[in-house]
Amino acid sequence: MPEDIKTVAVIGCGVIGASWACLFLSRGLNVIIFDPAEGAQDAFNKYLQGTWTALKSCNPDQEDAWAQNYMFVNNLESTLGEVDFVQENGPERPEFKQRLMEELDRYTRPSVVISSSSSGLPASGFIKLCGKAPSRILVGHPFNPPHLVPLVEVVPHPGTGTSTIDTAMDFYKSLGKNPILLRREVPGFVANRLQAAINSEAYSLVSRGIVSAEDLDTAVTSGPGLRWALTGPFVTNSLGGGGGPNGFAQRTERLGPAIRGWEEDMLEHRFDWSEERLSVLNKEASKWLGSVDWGRVTAQRDQMLLQLLEVKSQDASVYGRQSL
Amino acid sequence: MPEDIKTVAVIGCGVIGASWACLFLSRGLNVIIFDPAEGAQDAFNKYLQGTWTALKSCNPDQEDAWAQNYMFVNNLESTLGEVDFVQENGPERPEFKQRLMEELDRYTRPSVVISSSSSGLPASGFIKLCGKAPSRILVGHPFNPPHLVPLVEVVPHPGTGTSTIDTAMDFYKSLGKNPILLRREVPGFVANRLQAAINSEAYSLVSRGIVSAEDLDTAVTSGPGLRWALTGPFVTNSLGGGGGPNGFAQRTERLGPAIRGWEEDMLEHRFDWSEERLSVLNKEASKWLGSVDWGRVTAQRDQMLLQLLEVKSQDASVYGRQSL
Repeated sequence: MPEDIKTVAVIGCGVIGASWACLFLSRGLNVIIFDPAEGAQDAFNKYLQGTWTALKSCNPDQEDAWAQNYMFVNNLESTLGEVDFVQENGPERPEFKQRLMEELDRYTRPSVVISSSSSGLPASGFIKLCGKAPSRILVGHPFNPPHLVPLVEVVPHPGTGTSTIDTAMDFYKSLGKNPILLRREVPGFVANRLQAAINSEAYSLVSRGIVSAEDLDTAVTSGPGLRWALTGPFVTNSLGGGGGPNGFAQRTERLGPAIRGWEEDMLEHRFDWSEERLSVLNKEASKWLGSVDWGRVTAQRDQMLLQLLEVKSQDASVYGRQSL
Repeated sequence: MPEDIKTVAVIGCGVIGASWACLFLSRGLNVIIFDPAEGAQDAFNKYLQGTWTALKSCNPDQEDAWAQNYMFVNNLESTLGEVDFVQENGPERPEFKQRLMEELDRYTRPSVVISSSSSGLPASGFIKLCGKAPSRILVGHPFNPPHLVPLVEVVPHPGTGTSTIDTAMDFYKSLGKNPILLRREVPGFVANRLQAAINSEAYSLVSRGIVSAEDLDTAVTSGPGLRWALTGPFVTNSLGGGGGPNGFAQRTERLGPAIRGWEEDMLEHRFDWSEERLSVLNKEASKWLGSVDWGRVTAQRDQMLLQLLEVKSQDASVYGRQSL
């Protein structure tokens, strides 16, 4: 933990904000929460109770008393002067975020890092009204739920200072996260673009009637998805090319022509979001999704995720940076 | 196990063929192996010793004596008459496969299913010389290594009979696999197209200098990759839209405009396989892949995969069809 970060402001306490707040509390930080929605505090209390045990299994040092170290506030001006880091989780609307950022910038000390959970909108799009110190603003995009999934995408805007980037990266690492750094802003950042890529081809195949939505999901969870939890595209491709540092280039050379052929076919049949294909897609999706036991999936997926992270943590040195 | 399948021919005993043969043996089948490469039998013996224990952990009924039930042959004509199922794993060259398939078709009984491990070439491309019974030929594309990864893509050609499809699906299920059925042939089938989609965007982002190859891999293994081992694109997207059968359409409607914007940007900056970008890509990849401990990754990834499958098998009813 960077020593000078003791109090964090969580702005907006929906699903993402609440999860961040629980994580901060579990690491012994004081948390100031701002959310004007009615019932926000009750909803947060309930969420905190539901996550505290899972968080403890990730962090044996967690003390039960820390769960009390939060305070809901309804006035930003009078409280933001105390905070050492801001995690903003407001609605993903540029105008809204612009006005919110202007306030956060105005009421915090100029050296305090302001990180936005924006899921695809780069900071350049919402710092226009910040007149005080926009160089301490960046995006720190988590993956849902932030208290469990290790990834945080740190995305500076062109004017973000290097010390801001370092502080944000160090802070997220100190929380057990695996932050990655984007060198330039792109819409959708990295993980959502990768997800969009696979989703687009999935929608194409299912709306064309090549495969059922259920079989499409099985193709991922019983095939490449099992690898992606352990090795990313570069290591996976290198292993596919015989392994080692040269495996990647060998695979690209050997399979490149075949892959380019597949890519051309994929481009030709690209999912185009037309009303017609969207209608077929939703119909095919509902055949599968109507048969899923959602109560159990929702109740158990975080538990499965914890077990998976536990398996991975048994050899963190092989599979790269791990959070648990 | 379909009762009439007792002896399986494995044609080509490289990495994929050897893995199939081990799986067949572990389920009590007799295996006839054909591979003209020098040293193929010694290599297989070694591979079998290395995988037998892992296979036993997946299948408590496995008997040690079954490891002996294989025979290498060097003449197809005199032995193929005895086999009840053929798994072909020859080189991925259309002309080669055409000639090989002609022989397999000629020497087997006409009711025997001939399944090709072809990784992207549809059967239509290699059954042209089969004059006897091409309707019992299809693709059964496994994921490496077949003895561990549950996915098998069953891809009939337009003339494949429904009884052939049923036999192949039942046979693979009886081995503990999760076969999916493609309704029409497409190049690359399903899983390799989905992989190509994510790889293409990964290559684009890294060759553009947006993110390092290491951070790209971390984005997957610490983020969406953790989900894809458990829930496929459709269930994942539905959960992202609030869960339940309507979550999918809700997410598509709510996030569609943003996603279309990302897709347009991805298309504009698509990885084009030019010499220049390929060179940058390989250079960036080697910075990361040169620092990976390959000995340990190779030694331990199958172990990790087994643990992951074990975690998933604890609640197979939630996460769909599971192999273990």
